[in-house]
Amino acid sequence: MAKPLILVSNDDGITSRGIRLLVNVMKELGEVVVVAPDGPQSGMGHAITIGNTLRLEPNDLFGDVKAYECSGTPADCVKIAKHFVLKDRKPDLVVSGINHGSNTSISVLYSGTMSAAIEASLEGLPAIGFSLCDYSSDADLSHVSEYVKRIAKNVLDKGLTKGVALNVNFPPKRNESIRGIKICRQANATWQEDFDQRHDPNGRRYFWMAGNFVNHDKGEDNDEWAIANNYVSVVPCQYDMTAHHAILHLNEDWDDIS
Amino acid sequence: MAKPLILVSNDDGITSRGIRLLVNVMKELGEVVVVAPDGPQSGMGHAITIGNTLRLEPNDLFGDVKAYECSGTPADCVKIAKHFVLKDRKPDLVVSGINHGSNTSISVLYSGTMSAAIEASLEGLPAIGFSLCDYSSDADLSHVSEYVKRIAKNVLDKGLTKGVALNVNFPPKRNESIRGIKICRQANATWQEDFDQRHDPNGRRYFWMAGNFVNHDKGEDNDEWAIANNYVSVVPCQYDMTAHHAILHLNEDWDDIS
Repeated sequence: MAKPLILVSNDDGITSRGIRLLVNVMKELGEVVVVAPDGPQSGMGHAITIGNTLRLEPNDLFGDVKAYECSGTPADCVKIAKHFVLKDRKPDLVVSGINHGSNTSISVLYSGTMSAAIEASLEGLPAIGFSLCDYSSDADLSHVSEYVKRIAKNVLDKGLTKGVALNVNFPPKRNESIRGIKICRQANATWQEDFDQRHDPNGRRYFWMAGNFVNHDKGEDNDEWAIANNYVSVVPCQYDMTAHHAILHLNEDWDDIS
Repeated sequence: MAKPLILVSNDDGITSRGIRLLVNVMKELGEVVVVAPDGPQSGMGHAITIGNTLRLEPNDLFGDVKAYECSGTPADCVKIAKHFVLKDRKPDLVVSGINHGSNTSISVLYSGTMSAAIEASLEGLPAIGFSLCDYSSDADLSHVSEYVKRIAKNVLDKGLTKGVALNVNFPPKRNESIRGIKICRQANATWQEDFDQRHDPNGRRYFWMAGNFVNHDKGEDNDEWAIANNYVSVVPCQYDMTAHHAILHLNEDWDDIS
Protein backbone atom coordinates (compact mmCIF):
# COMPACT_ATOMS: atom_id res chain seq x y z
CA MET A 1 0.00 0.00 0.00
CA ALA A 2 1.26 3.51 -0.83
CA LYS A 3 2.35 5.56 2.15
CA PRO A 4 -0.05 8.39 3.01
CA LEU A 5 0.96 11.84 1.82
CA ILE A 6 1.15 14.34 4.68
CA LEU A 7 1.46 18.10 4.21
CA VAL A 8 3.05 19.98 7.11
CA SER A 9 2.77 23.71 7.78
CA ASN A 10 2.78 26.06 10.76
CA ASP A 11 2.68 29.73 11.75
CA ASP A 12 5.88 30.14 13.76
CA GLY A 13 7.89 29.77 10.54
CA ILE A 14 9.86 26.95 8.98
CA THR A 15 12.82 27.27 11.39
CA SER A 16 10.81 26.74 14.59
CA ARG A 17 11.35 23.78 16.90
CA GLY A 18 7.70 22.80 16.82
CA ILE A 19 7.56 22.09 13.10
CA ARG A 20 10.75 20.05 13.33
CA LEU A 21 9.17 17.74 15.88
CA LEU A 22 5.98 17.54 13.80
CA VAL A 23 7.95 16.56 10.66
CA ASN A 24 9.85 13.87 12.59
CA VAL A 25 6.65 12.30 13.92
CA MET A 26 4.88 12.48 10.53
CA LYS A 27 7.83 10.72 8.84
CA GLU A 28 6.88 7.65 10.88
CA LEU A 29 3.39 7.74 9.36
CA GLY A 30 3.88 8.66 5.71
CA GLU A 31 5.59 10.68 2.99
CA VAL A 32 6.01 14.24 4.20
CA VAL A 33 6.02 17.53 2.24
CA VAL A 34 6.57 20.82 4.08
CA VAL A 35 5.27 24.21 2.91
CA ALA A 36 5.67 26.71 5.75
CA PRO A 37 6.09 30.47 6.20
CA ASP A 38 9.59 31.92 5.81
CA GLY A 39 9.12 33.86 9.05
CA PRO A 40 6.81 34.20 12.06
CA GLN A 41 3.10 34.56 11.19
CA SER A 42 1.60 34.36 14.68
CA GLY A 43 -1.81 35.97 15.15
CA MET A 44 -2.39 36.15 11.41
CA GLY A 45 -5.83 34.54 11.72
CA HIS A 46 -7.20 33.46 8.36
CA ALA A 47 -5.34 36.19 6.45
CA ILE A 48 -4.41 35.61 2.81
CA THR A 49 -2.20 37.63 0.47
CA ILE A 50 -4.35 39.80 -1.80
CA GLY A 51 -2.91 42.49 -4.05
CA ASN A 52 0.65 41.35 -3.46
CA THR A 53 3.02 38.68 -4.78
CA LEU A 54 4.18 35.46 -3.15
CA ARG A 55 7.60 33.82 -3.04
CA LEU A 56 8.15 30.08 -2.75
CA GLU A 57 11.66 28.66 -2.38
CA PRO A 58 12.87 25.08 -1.84
CA ASN A 59 14.54 24.48 1.50
CA ASP A 60 16.80 21.66 2.76
CA LEU A 61 16.20 22.09 6.48
CA PHE A 62 14.57 18.67 6.81
CA GLY A 63 17.14 16.51 4.99
CA ASP A 64 15.40 14.14 2.58
CA VAL A 65 11.95 15.66 3.23
CA LYS A 66 10.79 17.91 0.39
CA ALA A 67 10.30 21.38 1.90
CA TYR A 68 9.48 24.89 0.73
CA GLU A 69 9.39 28.23 2.49
CA CYS A 70 6.73 30.69 1.44
CA SER A 71 6.54 34.45 1.98
CA GLY A 72 2.81 34.27 2.68
CA THR A 73 0.51 33.45 5.56
CA PRO A 74 -0.27 29.92 6.82
CA ALA A 75 -3.48 29.92 4.71
CA ASP A 76 -1.40 30.97 1.64
CA CYS A 77 1.00 28.08 2.34
CA VAL A 78 -1.83 25.53 2.24
CA LYS A 79 -3.29 27.10 -0.91
CA ILE A 80 0.03 27.10 -2.80
CA ALA A 81 0.78 23.58 -1.56
CA LYS A 82 -2.60 22.27 -2.72
CA HIS A 83 -2.84 24.10 -6.05
CA PHE A 84 0.83 24.31 -7.10
CA VAL A 85 3.36 22.14 -5.19
CA LEU A 86 1.03 19.11 -4.95
CA LYS A 87 -1.11 19.99 -7.96
CA ASP A 88 -1.36 16.39 -9.20
CA ARG A 89 -1.53 14.69 -5.82
CA LYS A 90 -3.96 14.97 -2.94
CA PRO A 91 -2.63 14.97 0.62
CA ASP A 92 -4.20 12.36 2.90
CA LEU A 93 -3.62 14.62 5.88
CA VAL A 94 -2.62 18.22 6.56
CA VAL A 95 -1.00 19.04 9.92
CA SER A 96 0.02 22.41 11.28
CA GLY A 97 2.23 23.34 14.24
CA ILE A 98 3.35 22.49 16.76
CA ASN A 99 2.56 26.04 17.80
CA HIS A 100 4.57 27.59 20.61
CA GLY A 101 1.62 28.91 22.60
CA SER A 102 -2.00 28.07 23.37
CA ASN A 103 -4.75 28.09 20.74
CA THR A 104 -7.58 27.11 23.03
CA SER A 105 -10.97 28.86 23.28
CA ILE A 106 -11.41 31.98 21.12
CA SER A 107 -7.69 32.06 20.29
CA VAL A 108 -8.68 29.71 17.46
CA LEU A 109 -9.94 32.81 15.60
CA TYR A 110 -6.58 34.61 15.76
CA SER A 111 -4.48 31.51 15.23
CA GLY A 112 -2.31 31.15 12.16
CA THR A 113 -1.73 27.50 13.12
CA MET A 114 -5.44 26.76 12.95
CA SER A 115 -5.97 28.85 9.81
CA ALA A 116 -3.72 26.40 7.94
CA ALA A 117 -5.84 23.50 9.23
CA ILE A 118 -9.14 25.23 8.48
CA GLU A 119 -7.94 26.22 5.00
CA ALA A 120 -7.19 22.53 4.39
CA SER A 121 -10.68 21.56 5.55
CA LEU A 122 -12.12 24.15 3.13
CA GLU A 123 -10.18 22.28 0.45
CA GLY A 124 -11.79 19.02 1.55
CA LEU A 125 -8.67 17.65 3.27
CA PRO A 126 -8.54 16.10 6.77
CA ALA A 127 -6.53 18.48 8.92
CA ILE A 128 -5.17 18.99 12.43
CA GLY A 129 -3.61 22.02 14.14
CA PHE A 130 -1.33 21.22 17.11
CA SER A 131 -0.40 23.74 19.81
CA LEU A 132 1.50 23.56 23.08
CA CYS A 133 0.12 25.71 25.90
CA ASP A 134 3.58 27.07 26.70
CA TYR A 135 4.82 30.29 25.09
CA SER A 136 8.56 29.89 25.80
CA SER A 137 10.59 29.17 22.68
CA ASP A 138 12.64 26.54 24.55
CA ALA A 139 9.49 24.84 25.93
CA ASP A 140 9.79 21.14 26.75
CA LEU A 141 8.08 19.20 23.93
CA SER A 142 9.10 15.71 25.10
CA HIS A 143 5.62 14.78 26.36
CA VAL A 144 3.68 15.46 23.15
CA SER A 145 5.19 13.25 20.38
CA GLU A 146 3.30 10.15 21.48
CA TYR A 147 -0.02 12.02 21.37
CA VAL A 148 0.72 13.81 18.07
CA LYS A 149 1.31 10.40 16.48
CA ARG A 150 -1.75 8.79 18.06
CA ILE A 151 -4.11 11.60 17.00
CA ALA A 152 -2.72 11.80 13.45
CA LYS A 153 -3.04 8.01 13.16
CA ASN A 154 -6.66 8.17 14.34
CA VAL A 155 -7.45 10.72 11.63
CA LEU A 156 -5.61 8.74 8.92
CA ASP A 157 -7.38 5.52 9.94
CA LYS A 158 -10.88 6.78 10.75
CA GLY A 159 -11.14 10.00 8.68
CA LEU A 160 -12.91 13.14 9.82
CA THR A 161 -16.46 14.44 9.47
CA LYS A 162 -16.73 16.56 6.29
CA GLY A 163 -15.93 20.25 6.82
CA VAL A 164 -14.21 19.63 10.15
CA ALA A 165 -10.60 20.29 11.26
CA LEU A 166 -9.22 19.44 14.69
CA ASN A 167 -7.81 22.00 17.10
CA VAL A 168 -5.45 20.03 19.38
CA ASN A 169 -3.82 21.68 22.40
CA PHE A 170 -1.28 20.08 24.73
CA PRO A 171 -0.85 21.01 28.38
CA PRO A 172 2.60 22.33 29.33
CA LYS A 173 5.05 19.71 30.59
CA ARG A 174 4.25 18.97 34.22
CA ASN A 175 5.63 16.50 36.76
CA GLU A 176 2.57 14.30 36.33
CA SER A 177 2.13 12.60 32.90
CA ILE A 178 -0.68 13.71 30.58
CA ARG A 179 -3.90 12.04 31.74
CA GLY A 180 -5.31 11.34 28.27
CA ILE A 181 -7.31 12.93 25.46
CA LYS A 182 -10.60 14.85 25.84
CA ILE A 183 -12.88 15.68 22.90
CA CYS A 184 -14.10 19.18 23.78
CA ARG A 185 -15.95 22.27 22.74
CA GLN A 186 -14.29 25.69 22.49
CA ALA A 187 -14.34 27.40 25.92
CA ASN A 188 -16.15 30.72 26.32
CA ALA A 189 -13.51 33.27 27.23
CA THR A 190 -12.42 36.79 26.30
CA TRP A 191 -9.21 38.75 26.03
CA GLN A 192 -9.15 41.82 28.27
CA GLU A 193 -6.83 44.06 26.29
CA ASP A 194 -4.53 46.66 27.73
CA PHE A 195 -2.90 49.25 25.47
CA ASP A 196 0.44 50.41 26.79
CA GLN A 197 1.14 53.94 25.49
CA ARG A 198 4.78 54.85 24.82
CA HIS A 199 6.70 57.46 22.84
CA ASP A 200 9.30 56.76 20.18
CA PRO A 201 12.66 58.60 20.10
CA ASN A 202 10.99 61.29 17.94
CA GLY A 203 8.29 61.90 20.54
CA ARG A 204 5.51 60.23 18.52
CA ARG A 205 3.06 58.06 20.41
CA TYR A 206 2.79 54.32 19.80
CA PHE A 207 1.09 51.40 21.52
CA TRP A 208 1.78 47.85 22.61
CA MET A 209 -1.28 45.64 22.88
CA ALA A 210 -1.17 43.29 25.86
CA GLY A 211 -4.04 41.00 26.71
CA ASN A 212 -5.23 39.10 29.75
CA PHE A 213 -7.12 35.93 28.97
CA VAL A 214 -10.31 35.74 31.06
CA ASN A 215 -12.10 32.39 31.20
CA HIS A 216 -15.88 32.77 31.75
CA ASP A 217 -16.68 29.11 31.20
CA LYS A 218 -17.87 27.05 34.16
CA GLY A 219 -18.24 23.84 32.15
CA GLU A 220 -15.99 20.77 32.25
CA ASP A 221 -16.52 19.83 28.60
CA ASN A 222 -14.30 22.56 27.13
CA ASP A 223 -10.67 22.90 26.08
CA GLU A 224 -9.65 25.24 28.91
CA TRP A 225 -10.85 22.73 31.49
CA ALA A 226 -9.03 19.89 29.71
CA ILE A 227 -5.70 21.76 29.63
CA ALA A 228 -6.04 22.90 33.26
CA ASN A 229 -6.61 19.27 34.22
CA ASN A 230 -3.61 17.96 32.26
CA TYR A 231 -5.54 16.41 29.35
CA VAL A 232 -4.89 16.89 25.64
CA SER A 233 -7.85 18.89 24.27
CA VAL A 234 -9.29 18.05 20.84
CA VAL A 235 -11.91 20.51 19.51
CA PRO A 236 -13.52 19.72 16.14
CA CYS A 237 -13.83 23.06 14.30
CA GLN A 238 -15.98 24.01 11.33
CA TYR A 239 -15.72 26.73 8.72
CA ASP A 240 -19.48 27.24 8.58
CA MET A 241 -19.73 30.33 10.77
CA THR A 242 -23.52 30.59 10.44
CA ALA A 243 -25.28 30.97 13.78
CA HIS A 244 -28.11 28.73 12.59
CA HIS A 245 -30.05 29.20 15.84
CA ALA A 246 -30.16 32.97 15.26
CA ILE A 247 -31.87 32.71 11.87
CA LEU A 248 -35.28 32.03 13.36
CA HIS A 249 -34.99 34.90 15.84
CA LEU A 250 -34.12 37.39 13.09
CA ASN A 251 -36.94 36.10 10.92
CA GLU A 252 -39.29 36.65 13.85
CA ASP A 253 -37.96 39.96 15.23
CA TRP A 254 -37.54 41.98 12.03
CA ASP A 255 -40.75 43.25 10.48
CA ASP A 256 -39.42 44.61 7.21
CA ILE A 257 -38.00 41.54 5.49
CA SER A 258 -39.24 39.57 2.53
CA MET B 1 -32.84 59.92 25.47
CA ALA B 2 -29.09 59.82 24.75
CA LYS B 3 -28.21 59.13 21.15
CA PRO B 4 -26.76 55.65 20.61
CA LEU B 5 -22.97 55.47 20.28
CA ILE B 6 -21.90 53.84 17.02
CA LEU B 7 -18.34 52.71 16.29
CA VAL B 8 -17.45 52.53 12.57
CA SER B 9 -14.53 50.60 11.08
CA ASN B 10 -13.68 48.83 7.82
CA ASP B 11 -10.91 46.97 6.01
CA ASP B 12 -10.47 49.06 2.84
CA GLY B 13 -8.93 51.84 4.92
CA ILE B 14 -10.21 55.13 6.28
CA THR B 15 -10.08 56.93 2.89
CA SER B 16 -12.41 54.51 1.05
CA ARG B 17 -15.77 55.55 -0.37
CA GLY B 18 -17.61 52.76 1.44
CA ILE B 19 -16.76 53.95 4.95
CA ARG B 20 -17.75 57.51 4.02
CA LEU B 21 -21.24 56.36 3.08
CA LEU B 22 -21.47 54.24 6.24
CA VAL B 23 -20.49 57.21 8.44
CA ASN B 24 -23.09 59.43 6.73
CA VAL B 25 -25.88 56.91 7.31
CA MET B 26 -24.85 56.22 10.91
CA LYS B 27 -24.87 59.97 11.69
CA GLU B 28 -28.63 59.83 11.13
CA LEU B 29 -28.92 57.16 13.86
CA GLY B 30 -26.51 58.24 16.58
CA GLU B 31 -23.17 59.64 17.72
CA VAL B 32 -20.44 58.23 15.51
CA VAL B 33 -16.79 57.45 16.31
CA VAL B 34 -14.51 56.09 13.57
CA VAL B 35 -11.45 53.90 14.18
CA ALA B 36 -10.30 52.46 10.86
CA PRO B 37 -7.09 51.17 9.27
CA ASP B 38 -4.70 53.76 7.79
CA GLY B 39 -4.44 51.68 4.61
CA PRO B 40 -6.01 48.69 2.84
CA GLN B 41 -6.36 45.55 4.98
CA SER B 42 -8.36 43.37 2.60
CA GLY B 43 -8.09 39.62 3.11
CA MET B 44 -6.58 40.06 6.57
CA GLY B 45 -9.06 37.63 8.12
CA HIS B 46 -9.03 37.79 11.90
CA ALA B 47 -5.36 38.85 12.07
CA ILE B 48 -4.16 40.87 15.04
CA THR B 49 -0.84 42.63 15.63
CA ILE B 50 1.38 40.50 17.86
CA GLY B 51 5.03 41.29 18.50
CA ASN B 52 4.78 44.69 16.89
CA THR B 53 3.65 48.19 17.81
CA LEU B 54 0.50 50.07 16.80
CA ARG B 55 -0.02 53.68 15.79
CA LEU B 56 -3.24 55.61 16.33
CA GLU B 57 -3.65 59.14 14.99
CA PRO B 58 -6.66 61.51 15.01
CA ASN B 59 -8.07 62.27 11.59
CA ASP B 60 -10.40 65.04 10.37
CA LEU B 61 -11.69 63.32 7.22
CA PHE B 62 -15.25 63.18 8.54
CA GLY B 63 -15.71 66.81 9.68
CA ASP B 64 -17.26 66.89 13.14
CA VAL B 65 -17.17 63.11 13.56
CA LYS B 66 -14.38 61.95 15.87
CA ALA B 67 -12.11 59.73 13.81
CA TYR B 68 -8.79 57.90 14.19
CA GLU B 69 -6.64 55.98 11.77
CA CYS B 70 -4.80 52.97 13.09
CA SER B 71 -1.79 51.14 11.65
CA GLY B 72 -3.25 47.75 12.60
CA THR B 73 -5.78 45.29 11.24
CA PRO B 74 -9.58 45.71 11.44
CA ALA B 75 -9.61 43.49 14.58
CA ASP B 76 -6.90 45.70 16.12
CA CYS B 77 -9.03 48.78 15.33
CA VAL B 78 -11.98 47.38 17.28
CA LYS B 79 -9.76 46.34 20.18
CA ILE B 80 -8.07 49.75 20.50
CA ALA B 81 -11.44 51.48 20.07
CA LYS B 82 -13.05 49.40 22.83
CA HIS B 83 -10.16 49.36 25.30
CA PHE B 84 -8.54 52.75 24.69
CA VAL B 85 -10.50 55.31 22.60
CA LEU B 86 -13.88 54.43 24.17
CA LYS B 87 -12.49 53.04 27.41
CA ASP B 88 -15.18 54.61 29.59
CA ARG B 89 -18.10 54.22 27.18
CA LYS B 90 -19.69 51.20 25.56
CA PRO B 91 -20.76 51.39 21.92
CA ASP B 92 -24.39 50.46 21.28
CA LEU B 93 -23.47 49.21 17.83
CA VAL B 94 -20.33 48.45 15.83
CA VAL B 95 -20.52 48.59 12.03
CA SER B 96 -17.84 47.75 9.50
CA GLY B 97 -17.61 48.48 5.77
CA ILE B 98 -19.07 49.11 3.36
CA ASN B 99 -16.61 46.70 1.78
CA HIS B 100 -15.84 47.06 -1.91
CA GLY B 101 -16.31 43.39 -2.83
CA SER B 102 -18.35 40.37 -1.80
CA ASN B 103 -18.03 38.69 1.61
CA THR B 104 -20.61 35.98 1.02
CA SER B 105 -20.12 32.27 1.69
CA ILE B 106 -16.64 31.20 2.89
CA SER B 107 -15.21 34.64 2.09
CA VAL B 108 -16.39 35.51 5.61
CA LEU B 109 -13.30 33.67 6.88
CA TYR B 110 -10.85 35.83 4.88
CA SER B 111 -12.77 39.06 5.36
CA GLY B 112 -11.24 41.95 7.26
CA THR B 113 -14.63 43.66 7.20
CA MET B 114 -16.25 40.78 9.06
CA SER B 115 -13.30 40.32 11.43
CA ALA B 116 -14.07 43.81 12.82
CA ALA B 117 -17.70 42.78 13.37
CA ILE B 118 -16.79 39.40 14.87
CA GLU B 119 -14.20 41.00 17.15
CA ALA B 120 -16.96 43.32 18.39
CA SER B 121 -19.25 40.34 19.05
CA LEU B 122 -16.41 38.71 21.05
CA GLU B 123 -16.41 41.90 23.13
CA GLY B 124 -20.14 41.51 23.69
CA LEU B 125 -21.17 44.31 21.31
CA PRO B 126 -23.90 44.09 18.63
CA ALA B 127 -22.13 44.27 15.28
CA ILE B 128 -22.73 44.28 11.54
CA GLY B 129 -20.35 43.96 8.58
CA PHE B 130 -21.61 45.45 5.29
CA SER B 131 -20.26 44.50 1.86
CA LEU B 132 -21.21 45.33 -1.70
CA CYS B 133 -20.84 42.48 -4.20
CA ASP B 134 -19.03 44.73 -6.68
CA TYR B 135 -15.23 44.96 -6.69
CA SER B 136 -14.83 48.17 -8.70
CA SER B 137 -13.63 51.11 -6.62
CA ASP B 138 -16.12 53.43 -8.35
CA ALA B 139 -19.03 51.01 -7.80
CA ASP B 140 -22.51 52.53 -7.60
CA LEU B 141 -23.53 52.60 -3.92
CA SER B 142 -26.75 54.59 -4.38
CA HIS B 143 -29.05 51.59 -3.81
CA VAL B 144 -27.69 50.50 -0.41
CA SER B 145 -28.07 53.47 2.00
CA GLU B 146 -31.73 52.77 2.66
CA TYR B 147 -30.97 49.14 3.58
CA VAL B 148 -27.90 49.99 5.67
CA LYS B 149 -30.06 52.31 7.76
CA ARG B 150 -32.95 49.86 8.05
CA ILE B 151 -30.73 46.96 9.16
CA ALA B 152 -28.74 49.07 11.64
CA LYS B 153 -32.01 50.39 13.08
CA ASN B 154 -33.36 46.86 13.46
CA VAL B 155 -30.25 45.87 15.44
CA LEU B 156 -30.37 49.03 17.61
CA ASP B 157 -34.08 48.50 18.32
CA LYS B 158 -34.27 44.71 18.69
CA GLY B 159 -30.71 43.76 19.72
CA LEU B 160 -28.92 40.63 18.55
CA THR B 161 -28.63 37.11 19.94
CA LYS B 162 -25.58 36.90 22.22
CA GLY B 163 -22.35 35.96 20.43
CA VAL B 164 -23.75 36.78 16.99
CA ALA B 165 -22.62 39.35 14.39
CA LEU B 166 -24.37 39.97 11.08
CA ASN B 167 -22.72 39.50 7.70
CA VAL B 168 -24.70 41.71 5.31
CA ASN B 169 -24.04 41.64 1.56
CA PHE B 170 -25.67 43.86 -1.07
CA PRO B 171 -26.21 42.85 -4.69
CA PRO B 172 -24.49 45.05 -7.27
CA LYS B 173 -26.61 47.92 -8.64
CA ARG B 174 -28.94 46.49 -11.29
CA ASN B 175 -31.76 47.99 -13.38
CA GLU B 176 -34.34 46.33 -11.14
CA SER B 177 -34.56 47.60 -7.51
CA ILE B 178 -33.42 45.34 -4.67
CA ARG B 179 -36.24 42.88 -3.93
CA GLY B 180 -35.84 42.90 -0.12
CA ILE B 181 -33.87 41.29 2.70
CA LYS B 182 -33.27 37.55 3.18
CA ILE B 183 -31.99 36.03 6.44
CA CYS B 184 -29.64 33.30 5.19
CA ARG B 185 -27.03 30.72 6.00
CA GLN B 186 -23.48 30.86 4.61
CA ALA B 187 -23.39 29.17 1.16
CA ASN B 188 -21.17 26.15 0.62
CA ALA B 189 -18.57 27.16 -1.94
CA THR B 190 -14.83 26.97 -2.54
CA TRP B 191 -12.09 29.03 -4.14
CA GLN B 192 -10.34 27.21 -6.96
CA GLU B 193 -6.92 28.86 -6.80
CA ASP B 194 -4.60 29.42 -9.69
CA PHE B 195 -0.97 30.42 -9.10
CA ASP B 196 0.43 32.49 -11.93
CA GLN B 197 4.24 32.03 -12.06
CA ARG B 198 6.30 35.02 -13.20
CA HIS B 199 9.91 36.19 -12.96
CA ASP B 200 11.09 39.47 -11.50
CA PRO B 201 13.67 41.69 -13.31
CA ASN B 202 16.44 39.73 -11.49
CA GLY B 203 15.16 36.41 -12.82
CA ARG B 204 13.75 35.23 -9.49
CA ARG B 205 10.40 33.44 -9.54
CA TYR B 206 7.32 34.89 -7.87
CA PHE B 207 3.59 34.12 -7.86
CA TRP B 208 0.26 35.86 -8.13
CA MET B 209 -2.63 34.02 -6.51
CA ALA B 210 -5.85 34.24 -8.50
CA GLY B 211 -8.99 32.43 -7.47
CA ASN B 212 -12.21 31.32 -9.09
CA PHE B 213 -15.19 31.18 -6.78
CA VAL B 214 -17.07 27.90 -7.25
CA ASN B 215 -20.54 27.65 -5.72
CA HIS B 216 -21.49 24.06 -4.80
CA ASP B 217 -24.67 24.99 -2.98
CA LYS B 218 -28.01 23.97 -4.51
CA GLY B 219 -30.09 25.52 -1.71
CA GLU B 220 -32.19 28.67 -1.86
CA ASP B 221 -31.68 29.61 1.81
CA ASN B 222 -28.09 30.83 1.43
CA ASP B 223 -26.37 34.16 0.78
CA GLU B 224 -25.19 33.32 -2.74
CA TRP B 225 -28.74 32.57 -3.82
CA ALA B 226 -29.99 35.80 -2.23
CA ILE B 227 -27.42 37.98 -4.03
CA ALA B 228 -27.98 36.22 -7.36
CA ASN B 229 -31.70 36.93 -6.98
CA ASN B 230 -31.22 40.61 -6.10
CA TYR B 231 -31.91 40.35 -2.36
CA VAL B 232 -29.81 41.75 0.47
CA SER B 233 -28.35 38.74 2.32
CA VAL B 234 -28.08 38.77 6.13
CA VAL B 235 -26.14 35.86 7.68
CA PRO B 236 -25.91 35.70 11.47
CA CYS B 237 -22.33 34.58 12.28
CA GLN B 238 -20.91 33.14 15.48
CA TYR B 239 -17.41 32.99 16.91
CA ASP B 240 -17.95 29.54 18.40
CA MET B 241 -16.20 27.48 15.74
CA THR B 242 -16.89 24.16 17.49
CA ALA B 243 -18.40 21.55 15.18
CA HIS B 244 -20.64 20.31 17.98
CA HIS B 245 -22.07 17.53 15.81
CA ALA B 246 -18.59 16.07 15.31
CA ILE B 247 -17.92 15.62 19.03
CA LEU B 248 -20.05 12.50 19.28
CA HIS B 249 -18.47 10.90 16.21
CA LEU B 250 -14.95 11.43 17.57
CA ASN B 251 -15.99 10.08 20.96
CA GLU B 252 -17.34 7.00 19.22
CA ASP B 253 -14.65 6.46 16.57
CA TRP B 254 -11.48 6.88 18.61
CA ASP B 255 -10.62 3.98 20.93
CA ASP B 256 -7.76 5.51 22.88
CA ILE B 257 -9.35 8.45 24.64
CA SER B 258 -10.21 8.98 28.28
